[in-house]
Amino acid sequence: MLQDAVDRLVALLDLEPIEVNIFRGVSPDETVQRVFGGQVAGQALVAAARTVTGGHRVHSLHAYFLRPGDPAVPILYEVDRIRDGRSFTTRRVIAIQHGKAIFNLQASFHVPEQGLDHQVPMADVTAPELLPTFTERWAPWADTLGEWYTRPRPIDSRHVDWSPPERKQVLPPYQRVWLKADGVLPDDPVLHACVLVYASDMTLLDTALLPHGGEFDESRLMMASLDHAMWFHRPFRADEWLLYHQDTPTASDGLGLARGLIYTHDGHLAVSVVQEGLLRVPS
Amino acid sequence: MLQDAVDRLVALLDLEPIEVNIFRGVSPDETVQRVFGGQVAGQALVAAARTVTGGHRVHSLHAYFLRPGDPAVPILYEVDRIRDGRSFTTRRVIAIQHGKAIFNLQASFHVPEQGLDHQVPMADVTAPELLPTFTERWAPWADTLGEWYTRPRPIDSRHVDWSPPERKQVLPPYQRVWLKADGVLPDDPVLHACVLVYASDMTLLDTALLPHGGEFDESRLMMASLDHAMWFHRPFRADEWLLYHQDTPTASDGLGLARGLIYTHDGHLAVSVVQEGLLRVPS
Repeated sequence: MLQDAVDRLVALLDLEPIEVNIFRGVSPDETVQRVFGGQVAGQALVAAARTVTGGHRVHSLHAYFLRPGDPAVPILYEVDRIRDGRSFTTRRVIAIQHGKAIFNLQASFHVPEQGLDHQVPMADVTAPELLPTFTERWAPWADTLGEWYTRPRPIDSRHVDWSPPERKQVLPPYQRVWLKADGVLPDDPVLHACVLVYASDMTLLDTALLPHGGEFDESRLMMASLDHAMWFHRPFRADEWLLYHQDTPTASDGLGLARGLIYTHDGHLAVSVVQEGLLRVPS
Repeated sequence: MLQDAVDRLVALLDLEPIEVNIFRGVSPDETVQRVFGGQVAGQALVAAARTVTGGHRVHSLHAYFLRPGDPAVPILYEVDRIRDGRSFTTRRVIAIQHGKAIFNLQASFHVPEQGLDHQVPMADVTAPELLPTFTERWAPWADTLGEWYTRPRPIDSRHVDWSPPERKQVLPPYQRVWLKADGVLPDDPVLHACVLVYASDMTLLDTALLPHGGEFDESRLMMASLDHAMWFHRPFRADEWLLYHQDTPTASDGLGLARGLIYTHDGHLAVSVVQEGLLRVPS
């Protein structure tokens, strides 16, 4: 357990209120070139949710990454209360740095009602306890990886099929990854949703590379999340194991699409995800 | 061929410019209670595309339906040029009626580049020419269907698996539908994208009902599109046959999710679609 790293993630998702519809977030003190997309998406959902009251819970979000986030300065989140309804409430959030929009999110909140119920079943895969941790996966290369390897990670992720160090050949267009916060989270369901927004951006786009092993020079690849959409179907805790079943229907024109279905440990379909990203291989 | 109906759809997608970033659209004179969602989504994409110049082509859109559209008054489309970039340009569009936002769209435009290429193969299904038309499918009930049956439809759609009149029992969670504009369209690729936006909203949410045949009283069901997301991968013509492969991963809490992959007649994956909708069965 890395409770300290999890607590820092929880703190990252606790925005400072500036005005009724304006919030401010910071980035962790990392030596990174740009802010992690999952952080901006998670913080933006926090901002949206802070303006929604009553029994409404988030059921979907759609977001675009517009410009790289600067980790050196705070991010301002401006919420537009575009619709307040009895069943549905909708919010738009713009994340701003240096006077420009870096990210744009729409999210919808709904009061759950009785209705039809079905879901695709979860695949039967190896239990997370039997799979190597991040530290174990990359141990043979520890000396060459520096701070990236030793940095405490708030999300414990375990690859079921083919872990990144093993990928040298063409692979099927899917990957399953177990993930959870590596510590205990407070009980607030909004926080669990925002932690999963954060975590869902970590391995998804990577899926679009699986059918192309060895086809290109990985050191020259430029990857960036372009959008991020999520649908929240059923309750879950982000500090309990979730199976992230990811696949990639297509890539073309320098772009790749990846989809995810996230199941609770006992097989309930909790969340769906879709993301398109830039996959630029300079010629 | 119903070239007149197709020409009216093309006219519907030709907005009146009011100001540089403001456009106005009308609804066809139909005896409907609310504007068809695909029309608003198609018109909003027209508005966004009118403000984008150069070699950028639409590669994705994400939209929310906020309030029912009123077919009796025009719809105003306000475009926000949130980002103009060399590779990517992003637009936000709000559709307004009676002083309120009825629809909110984000769309992204990209200059195609060389890169990795893969796609899931198209299923081998019955050719559209061998499948019944809308008129043929509903012919046995023609007397009871009135204007809904005789109204000229701009989109020719042919169900591969189980057509709506046949659905009385529990069915697998997918359906394949061939569709195309039932006439010739002008060559502008933006128009073809907007016609497909329109057509993609017609049968998608319906997919979420397939696993529930006979489980509920259909006359009491309340259905409404809540969001609509599309990714444009490869060139296509909306007046040539396209195979719309739709499935439904889940339904819960009064909401259902449906996904679509749209292939050209020769098997190229042209477009991906995801939509969530309200499936309310009053208790």
